[in-house]
Amino acid sequence: MDSSTCLAIASREGYECHTLAFDYDQRHKEELEMAAHQSRTFSASDHRVVRVDLACIGGSALTSSIEVPKDEVPDSIPVTYVPARNLVFLSIGLALAEVIAAQDLFIGANQVDYSGYPDCRRPFIESFETVANLATRMGAQGTRIRVHAPLLDLNKAQIVKKGLELGVDFKNTHTCYDPSDSGTACGRCPACRLRLKGFAEAGISDPISYQK
Amino acid sequence: MDSSTCLAIASREGYECHTLAFDYDQRHKEELEMAAHQSRTFSASDHRVVRVDLACIGGSALTSSIEVPKDEVPDSIPVTYVPARNLVFLSIGLALAEVIAAQDLFIGANQVDYSGYPDCRRPFIESFETVANLATRMGAQGTRIRVHAPLLDLNKAQIVKKGLELGVDFKNTHTCYDPSDSGTACGRCPACRLRLKGFAEAGISDPISYQK
Repeated sequence: MDSSTCLAIASREGYECHTLAFDYDQRHKEELEMAAHQSRTFSASDHRVVRVDLACIGGSALTSSIEVPKDEVPDSIPVTYVPARNLVFLSIGLALAEVIAAQDLFIGANQVDYSGYPDCRRPFIESFETVANLATRMGAQGTRIRVHAPLLDLNKAQIVKKGLELGVDFKNTHTCYDPSDSGTACGRCPACRLRLKGFAEAGISDPISYQK
Repeated sequence: MDSSTCLAIASREGYECHTLAFDYDQRHKEELEMAAHQSRTFSASDHRVVRVDLACIGGSALTSSIEVPKDEVPDSIPVTYVPARNLVFLSIGLALAEVIAAQDLFIGANQVDYSGYPDCRRPFIESFETVANLATRMGAQGTRIRVHAPLLDLNKAQIVKKGLELGVDFKNTHTCYDPSDSGTACGRCPACRLRLKGFAEAGISDPISYQK
């Protein structure tokens, strides 16, 4: 939901988009197919799937044998937190930006509903922008790299509305952390719960199927 | 040379070391074997090789079909620069640090001989330390993460001397960007030239073989 809406925003703002998805041995590889689909829908110039072996690092329910919790959205940082994930993803995004001479990075991070993730907060995003300008040839040569997180202050209901307004078909988005073998969302993990709450608050019916 | 000497320093300072090497489709995969060897030599607690598909990003002579230059050490940022590489590596190192509850990261970056690489300079290292503390659960919960770059201000001759003093066997290090199929260093790429210059200035004979 978040990445697709973020792409829709960048596209609407007139940016030529180059999309990146990450295969990091996550449980929910369904999102990779959806990412490629959304990239085509919003006419991105190209789409890459970058393999990063975060399973070899472990430490998260999304990349190790730790079980995905099913009962609640936790108050503290959850076991589904993947250590330093957004930093790793943004860093690789920055590498691509440098190769294609892009100076704007977009990320669908969102600090409202899930403030337990430290790498979804504004200070992180701002600090990444600083390091991005110091880490690269582009930055060293005076190009100002900007990191955009247009969903940072939206709640899930607002993201649903914004996405629909910009033409996102949420049927082709994947949110569940622990889908069935056939890819059907569980409806009970923290990510599903936040998604469902967002659609409910927006007064819109979620177009995807859930396990009974 | 740099990573091995950096490991020797961390080890001598009494840190329990967990070593990381990166398989990023670099031309010079020989370094992976050497890294594992050095990790054992300095009794690291464990060693991981993380696969990151930077070839899919491209933009460098080390990861694409761009030819490795053979004639000089360039003044400007060379084609062997891998976009955002140290940022990507440090980010993944940070992920591991968080998983094993380590608060000290070491990197063998060195700004003296090769100042063309923006991600080998002190402002980058300091800025990464800031983002590391904002990107992680550890940092969010008040643990202060530190990034150490003990070679930052040493030249290659000083690194050779420091390494020897700490027991680094430079026979088991790999530097060349463009080795032969059997792994022999070319002796002509910028990395070989800097290595050879460092040994010469230190008055020590380089124990590895070079192509004739």
